Amino acid sequence: MGMGMNLDNIRVVLVGPLYGGNVGSVCRAMANMGLTDLVLVQPRNLNMEEARMMACHATDILDERTELDSLAEAVADCRAVMGTTARMGLYRQHARTPRDWARKALRVAATGNVALVFGREDKGLDNEELSLCTQIIQIPTSDEYSSINLAQAVLICCYEIFVESETYEPPEEKSQEAPSFLREIMFGLWRQSLLDTGFMKLDKADHMMQGLRRILTRGKLTEDDVHILMGMARQASWAARGKAEAAEKAESD
Amino acid sequence: MGMGMNLDNIRVVLVGPLYGGNVGSVCRAMANMGLTDLVLVQPRNLNMEEARMMACHATDILDERTELDSLAEAVADCRAVMGTTARMGLYRQHARTPRDWARKALRVAATGNVALVFGREDKGLDNEELSLCTQIIQIPTSDEYSSINLAQAVLICCYEIFVESETYEPPEEKSQEAPSFLREIMFGLWRQSLLDTGFMKLDKADHMMQGLRRILTRGKLTEDDVHILMGMARQASWAARGKAEAAEKAESD
Repeated sequence: MGMGMNLDNIRVVLVGPLYGGNVGSVCRAMANMGLTDLVLVQPRNLNMEEARMMACHATDILDERTELDSLAEAVADCRAVMGTTARMGLYRQHARTPRDWARKALRVAATGNVALVFGREDKGLDNEELSLCTQIIQIPTSDEYSSINLAQAVLICCYEIFVESETYEPPEEKSQEAPSFLREIMFGLWRQSLLDTGFMKLDKADHMMQGLRRILTRGKLTEDDVHILMGMARQASWAARGKAEAAEKAESD
Repeated sequence: MGMGMNLDNIRVVLVGPLYGGNVGSVCRAMANMGLTDLVLVQPRNLNMEEARMMACHATDILDERTELDSLAEAVADCRAVMGTTARMGLYRQHARTPRDWARKALRVAATGNVALVFGREDKGLDNEELSLCTQIIQIPTSDEYSSINLAQAVLICCYEIFVESETYEPPEEKSQEAPSFLREIMFGLWRQSLLDTGFMKLDKADHMMQGLRRILTRGKLTEDDVHILMGMARQASWAARGKAEAAEKAESD
């Protein structure tokens, strides 16, 4: 099949990249694998001369990159947000390989945007950033030396999707996966609701929410699903506040 | 299965590398994928400081590299010699993907050495070098930009073998694939024999031999096979020379 249109929907997001050479190598790797959409989140004083040199004939991707202040903005319109994590990182029990996720990425990319998110060279993605991800990617590596160069990590993820795309036929999709910004509104409502109902205390809230995020992003979560979940959370908050008010009222009586 | 022993038999050979940074990145990629055996053939004034920097925690591979004067020496003991070629290169009709060859590489590596051969950054492998290869690898890339960075090419080939190795069980091997040096002696005898018998003239010999190389390396070629083929070639040469001598004698009578 002609795959250009699908690959056009796949975005590479680099969070806090440090070395211009890596960013340039990422551009070349993307071009080799048919991708063009590059977003940098808070790049750190990149050496652009090095970036240009390593980008080689892919300087158009470098020139047309977007720079943003937060990962949330970078993936707001993305229906699947696939983040990479180191072997020993958090959530590794949920991680799957680039090959495992390649088909999912293409399925979502047939009708919506997909982000592949890569962390800082020195310290990866932080927990807040990982929590925006709906899929966790772990690249298979040797136990002896698992730390892979940023551009090499990007290459493998893009390569797996490119190889898969050559034989891939997208199925008919009925309902679209929810975009990130909508999921985040939903999770915000649930957070408040679980606090309101006393299910969790503030000091455990972040931890509990990570669990809920995993449960709700394990399968496909459509826009309709998200609207239903938002309704549930709002209603629980309303009920909890009603009960609290009644209790206060009862006390003051 | 424990795969260390198999991956130990897989050698990365870089022919005429130009940039130290690439060689260093190759070391890191090899370490990430469990390989350690690096051979450089006629490296060209490498910037070793850059190499060391990019090798990161894989400087042991860099320090323990072998440097040789010819590809023939570098692969002499290798039973499979897998060379990479650009999309538009010679022999591309024989080329298969890194994934296609990964299982073959592991099968041979279970009992013998395998070379993965990568050409110069600027002009790849020449015809003589490609003729030493028993398998031609072509990495899948976009039509728009097919030229892939050296370290990125090495990574993809090593990655495919590493991923395959995680689930791979080697079969019982009865007869071993012939090593490169023995194949080359055999091809030398055949070249002479085909000249002796008048099958080909000297000006077409290289071209004809490429064809024969393809035919004889398409399947597995064992040491026994090679000895039989050497015998055939020697015998044909002997017969052809006998006939030539008889003709000369008849003329002088």
